[in-house]
Amino acid sequence: MSATPPVLLIHGGEGDVTDALREHEAAFREALLGALAAGRRVLEKEGDAIDAAQAAVAEMESCELFNAGRGSALCSDGSVQMSAALMRGSDRAAGAVAGLTRTEHPILAARLVLDSDQVLMVGEWADRRAAELGIAQRDNLHFVTEHQLARLRGRAAPEPMRGTVGAVCLDADGVLAAATSTGGRSGQPPGRVGDSPLIGAGTWADEHVAVSCTGVGEAFIRTGAAHQIAMLRQSGVALAEATERALADVSVFSGRGGLIAVDPSGATSSPLLSEVMPGGVWRAGSESVVWITGRPGRPQ
Amino acid sequence: MSATPPVLLIHGGEGDVTDALREHEAAFREALLGALAAGRRVLEKEGDAIDAAQAAVAEMESCELFNAGRGSALCSDGSVQMSAALMRGSDRAAGAVAGLTRTEHPILAARLVLDSDQVLMVGEWADRRAAELGIAQRDNLHFVTEHQLARLRGRAAPEPMRGTVGAVCLDADGVLAAATSTGGRSGQPPGRVGDSPLIGAGTWADEHVAVSCTGVGEAFIRTGAAHQIAMLRQSGVALAEATERALADVSVFSGRGGLIAVDPSGATSSPLLSEVMPGGVWRAGSESVVWITGRPGRPQ
Repeated sequence: MSATPPVLLIHGGEGDVTDALREHEAAFREALLGALAAGRRVLEKEGDAIDAAQAAVAEMESCELFNAGRGSALCSDGSVQMSAALMRGSDRAAGAVAGLTRTEHPILAARLVLDSDQVLMVGEWADRRAAELGIAQRDNLHFVTEHQLARLRGRAAPEPMRGTVGAVCLDADGVLAAATSTGGRSGQPPGRVGDSPLIGAGTWADEHVAVSCTGVGEAFIRTGAAHQIAMLRQSGVALAEATERALADVSVFSGRGGLIAVDPSGATSSPLLSEVMPGGVWRAGSESVVWITGRPGRPQ
Repeated sequence: MSATPPVLLIHGGEGDVTDALREHEAAFREALLGALAAGRRVLEKEGDAIDAAQAAVAEMESCELFNAGRGSALCSDGSVQMSAALMRGSDRAAGAVAGLTRTEHPILAARLVLDSDQVLMVGEWADRRAAELGIAQRDNLHFVTEHQLARLRGRAAPEPMRGTVGAVCLDADGVLAAATSTGGRSGQPPGRVGDSPLIGAGTWADEHVAVSCTGVGEAFIRTGAAHQIAMLRQSGVALAEATERALADVSVFSGRGGLIAVDPSGATSSPLLSEVMPGGVWRAGSESVVWITGRPGRPQ
């Protein structure tokens, strides 16, 4: 079908290189490999790009090492509010949720929205619909980890970064998809929504490219970062240049951020303003590769 | 300062030509003139584009003839949920709110967010912050009109369309701004958010163009409509062609919609898929012109 084999590229957010990050490196690698394996299982069973991206993100939502699902950053009132989005390039189907407080896997709630007539659902109504359609619900405290509580209180133990998670995928039919999930920023006011669930800001997929972003969300919104890459690709700009230009625009408003992107040829790009963006890639016929301080092509 | 005099362009949503619309034409004209006058007063006092766009939209939020503020469309549970956004082109400052249920003027709540560190606030927290900062709050029933209740119940009297409202402005310093406010779609599930409050979908302003959209929100989100126009302008495409191309993309997903746009030269564009998009324009040194079934340049 497709001229190129399937590709799955994931990120676990952006942050700084710290001693704590290096100490926890094995756990991060294991978590990233687990997410790639979850997506790979979908693709090897002839699942499509959106199912694979969703599976990889859901796996990372389950892991406390990431700022998504359990382990999310806490709002200023100590609560967890989660957001997520999914988009499929072939038909521009998109689903997103923001301000969730009870849904165990926000990315599954986003998928329900994608499969409905809406694109974005927010707050308690989004939790309620997810519950009605069988997505597991938990008390808000389930999502709160000791690390995030200590961080909010300004006395975090020396633990590594906790980042937004995302995945972009090209499947065997040449369809692109993107998925992102986050708990937002530590100490954010309740009700604040960043770029992750906003189609065109933190998440986008069309026939040219699939993109998932991480960083200071407001900067990605104010530059339409993910959609900008799609528009540049459409006008013939190469993938690497398109992603670098979008991130250069973001850098006007914030020095922190990164993104991952894949195009229909299977080419990937993952430019970064921050020190690190742990991630990984799987290509059909190859073994999964993950990195903590490195990048695709030169993993470390 | 600027090579061109200030321009303020507004819309009152999109809809069909009906006998009821023609019967209420005088009231619509008066409301549109009132909104232009509110923005004009700001600009004539050397106010800036964002203040003028905000003033025009706030005026329309007060009027039951529009689907924004009082007179908003009702959700399937009979409640009103309101969204709004503002963006200033010179520094890309943006503010948006979604899922408001108590704030009398959603566009003022969006302005508070623009003036904060956030870009988007949703739900009760957005209402609460607006209340804390002095924005008037009302019971949800205040926003519910008999017409919208009858419409939700499928027995609306023959009254005219009620549309999303928006304004785009170029001020004397050459700064562009856009503002949009809406009650969403009649019968929408509570928690559903459309394109109006999403920066890059229904609302956008940068140094190239200011845009406010109206129509089936999901289609504007899935095409990144407002940001698409900005990207096309940036690559040298003329305003009229850029807006027509964006709306042609929207038409793939919905046959209903329209938008207004202004660029730094003072040129305006207002392409439309639907039958009508009531609106008006004021240019410094000229009288205000409004239209119901017509368009800029050929008002009727």
